[in-house]
Amino acid sequence: MPSEYLEPSAPIARQGNERATLIARRVGIDTYRENVAYLRRDCPVYRAEGFQALSKVEVSTPDHGRSILAVVNVVDDARLIGERELGLSEEAFADLGIEDGAPVAIAHAEVPPSMQTLKRKIGGERLTRDELGAIVRDIARHRYSKIELAAFVVATNQFELDRDEVLYLTEAMVEVGRKLDWDEKPVVDKHCIGGLPGNRTSMLVVPIVAAHGMLIPKTSSRAITSPAGTADTMECLARVDLPFERMREIVRAHRGCLAWGGRAALSPADDVLISVERPLSIDSPGQMVASILSKKIAAGSTHLVLDIPLGPTAKVRHMDDAQRLKKLFEYVARHVGMMLDVVITDGRQPVGRGIGPALEARDVLQVLNNDPNAPMDLRNKALRLAGRVLEFDRDVRGGDGFAVARDILDSGRALAKMNAIVDAQGRAAELPPLARLTHTVRAPTEGHVTAIDCETMARIARLAGAPKVKGAGVDLLKKLGDRVQRGEPLYRIYADTAAELTFACDAAARAGGFTIGEPAPIAHGYVEF
Amino acid sequence: MPSEYLEPSAPIARQGNERATLIARRVGIDTYRENVAYLRRDCPVYRAEGFQALSKVEVSTPDHGRSILAVVNVVDDARLIGERELGLSEEAFADLGIEDGAPVAIAHAEVPPSMQTLKRKIGGERLTRDELGAIVRDIARHRYSKIELAAFVVATNQFELDRDEVLYLTEAMVEVGRKLDWDEKPVVDKHCIGGLPGNRTSMLVVPIVAAHGMLIPKTSSRAITSPAGTADTMECLARVDLPFERMREIVRAHRGCLAWGGRAALSPADDVLISVERPLSIDSPGQMVASILSKKIAAGSTHLVLDIPLGPTAKVRHMDDAQRLKKLFEYVARHVGMMLDVVITDGRQPVGRGIGPALEARDVLQVLNNDPNAPMDLRNKALRLAGRVLEFDRDVRGGDGFAVARDILDSGRALAKMNAIVDAQGRAAELPPLARLTHTVRAPTEGHVTAIDCETMARIARLAGAPKVKGAGVDLLKKLGDRVQRGEPLYRIYADTAAELTFACDAAARAGGFTIGEPAPIAHGYVEF
Repeated sequence: MPSEYLEPSAPIARQGNERATLIARRVGIDTYRENVAYLRRDCPVYRAEGFQALSKVEVSTPDHGRSILAVVNVVDDARLIGERELGLSEEAFADLGIEDGAPVAIAHAEVPPSMQTLKRKIGGERLTRDELGAIVRDIARHRYSKIELAAFVVATNQFELDRDEVLYLTEAMVEVGRKLDWDEKPVVDKHCIGGLPGNRTSMLVVPIVAAHGMLIPKTSSRAITSPAGTADTMECLARVDLPFERMREIVRAHRGCLAWGGRAALSPADDVLISVERPLSIDSPGQMVASILSKKIAAGSTHLVLDIPLGPTAKVRHMDDAQRLKKLFEYVARHVGMMLDVVITDGRQPVGRGIGPALEARDVLQVLNNDPNAPMDLRNKALRLAGRVLEFDRDVRGGDGFAVARDILDSGRALAKMNAIVDAQGRAAELPPLARLTHTVRAPTEGHVTAIDCETMARIARLAGAPKVKGAGVDLLKKLGDRVQRGEPLYRIYADTAAELTFACDAAARAGGFTIGEPAPIAHGYVEF
Repeated sequence: MPSEYLEPSAPIARQGNERATLIARRVGIDTYRENVAYLRRDCPVYRAEGFQALSKVEVSTPDHGRSILAVVNVVDDARLIGERELGLSEEAFADLGIEDGAPVAIAHAEVPPSMQTLKRKIGGERLTRDELGAIVRDIARHRYSKIELAAFVVATNQFELDRDEVLYLTEAMVEVGRKLDWDEKPVVDKHCIGGLPGNRTSMLVVPIVAAHGMLIPKTSSRAITSPAGTADTMECLARVDLPFERMREIVRAHRGCLAWGGRAALSPADDVLISVERPLSIDSPGQMVASILSKKIAAGSTHLVLDIPLGPTAKVRHMDDAQRLKKLFEYVARHVGMMLDVVITDGRQPVGRGIGPALEARDVLQVLNNDPNAPMDLRNKALRLAGRVLEFDRDVRGGDGFAVARDILDSGRALAKMNAIVDAQGRAAELPPLARLTHTVRAPTEGHVTAIDCETMARIARLAGAPKVKGAGVDLLKKLGDRVQRGEPLYRIYADTAAELTFACDAAARAGGFTIGEPAPIAHGYVEF
């Protein structure tokens, strides 16, 4: 059937497209935010081999006119999908707005134009506001495959985005997400760049600041690579998955909340990027600033206290780097109109004693209850950060914040406020119990605790099952500077299953996490007074 | 069951591991050389959520002691695997040396130590021979996920490896593969860096050089992103998938062969890297040199003529870049002890007329048969390259190679040699017919053909079904400099199915591939004489 003198856009093209539909089938494989289309190798409509090498396809709905990009995985397995079916993930169905069984067509995807821009960034060029905007839009729309995302993360990591590019990236990330509006100002917030286990100061700062009367509608993340996020720990006490309207009511009534921010889709591009930053464990300054500030802007915050812990096993390990990061945060914050107060804190060891949701919740409650056994480092750090937030209030004199915060905590007003917030969000029936299997790691020799490795302790807690198992994790029985005898307990691992206790114990055996030696003066660079 | 005072390496650990086995199940999903382990979300043995965020697991066989690294995909779908099963790909089964139904255990994977080195490369550091060796070994053993491979490709692209690093990378790639030994020297070869459709000179150079008596055991690849590789085109005439022992017999008898090199696993690390370089379309000089030279060394070649086509839509687009690339090839070749002659050739348009296996085979046969209609550009280019190979023979005077090659071709000795090689490899029953659906693209206006876009023509041929459909592709009816009338045919698309003809016609409609205009002198930089 030779078709001479057809114009390239002739009917045969469209005719072919109409014929070539497949039946969309839900495939229950979690591909972590990468759109994957499963196509049978023996598909009679499309030649799977032709797609294999070109690697991305456009999946479209003939009826609705919507389309997505997806990576093709060729399937030889009749159990998964039929030969006239196209397997798609839950997310792909949502993006396409179709139901299982709907007809879909596929075509070779044009490379998103922003990929050319990314190539130029890989080549070391500086990008404009519009160019970064286009990349971020394509990322948020799932148009990048995982390897393209990895290329973006490495390319923007390596040549360190300049500060204007970080600003553009931040603005672009805000633009593709939703923005919360609290109908009043200032809206204050407190955030830590992460990396320090047990650092649950938000659960103290929020009730203190809200008790003072400032608006602090805190949205937190769940743990991504850490053994507990604030949302995971708060969930031991109350419901955290709240619709925005419910959050607004709670905040109106109590001036604060401690909710999970995941439902609000505040920074969809960031959610996608995290899926590759995490396994690469790349967290460059530019990406960190854009990620954090875009989420804060989207959450409606106008005033932010930012905690940068500094220590040999923290995210930031040298005072120079901490200062550079501080200035980058300040530059971008000023240009997006956010009031920012950066605090560099002691990040030489985990904060408090517990690592893992239930153990950290216990520490927080001890502080709120003014329990004499409460971990003093958690209390003091929370008071310091709360004090800095309170000083955003024009009626609080510079330097008085700490004392005001301490009064609120000591008087029980913070505890009362926390109880009110917990009740409003929906109090948990009971505190989750600690996990049933334990293993105690003891000092191999006598001496002083001279170092506690934050990464190792986080990894052990995580392997033990935290944050999924609320009661799993690590309880620190000694901290920096403590004197220990040989055989004295250093920390205790809590796990729910034999496999998890094994994973955690194996990690502890490889790298104990504690260093026992002669007491030495603290390197000055790690502590800011 | 608290277990006080257990040493971290205590029995509970091993006991836990023994209990925690799953049944390995073949999953027929082609993940393109990435090891993926499919784990049910409701798996009663391992908590899938715990693995999700840590992303890579070590899968091991309790019986054999072998292990692989794999990325976990969490499965909610009971059709694919059972809750006590672990789904693995064909390749993973091979690597583990087990059969379907064997017990496997999983554990959180330690990050391969070479990942730390890669991080340093991302940070811009220079790597040593040992460091690059460790990375390449881990890549060849499938220990890197796709996103980690992408990070490597971008990191070594961006900061352009220095020439010693390229040398180390080349050596490392040779080391992890197999090396063929032909028991005599010199072993000559000819290679093109690619990117030029229709460039099937190897199928002419091999019979000419073999007819002269030099040893030229050519192993070629199948097309990766192009519409035809030499192996795909040769397959129109003869069997190309030959065991090494059979290749050796053929080469002993006929001095040459044209076989597919894929079975020999000459450069397993390169095979893995290509899986991400291709979709990123990154082909940096350092990676290209290491990839090509490592494969040639592994194939046992001692003398190589390398073709670098230069043109506005070829891989190399400026003479400066061509010269830099030439010097990098020469530097590495000298240090690995290979004789190398680099030829920069005219790459302004496709070579010959056909693009696609059967169409290109037709061109080659016309040249071998001294058909007056044979494409002269293909003939001349092949003679030039063959001449350069012949000049590796000490008995051929410098400059005489072209004439010697022409005599071999004109006398019919090249055709006779090709027939002998085809018979030895196993002659195909018949030449594959051209595909049944055609579409002719015509000149939209009168004028001269002033440009033919190599990338566009390759893409159209590929969308039409080449190389999978041997008879699919594009037949060029006009070439650079030809005068055309409005409506006169420029090229014809051949496809086998309506969907493929549609894909190709749509691409042709978007970017015709031909530019018609006023004849202009050729930019001098594109042609070396």
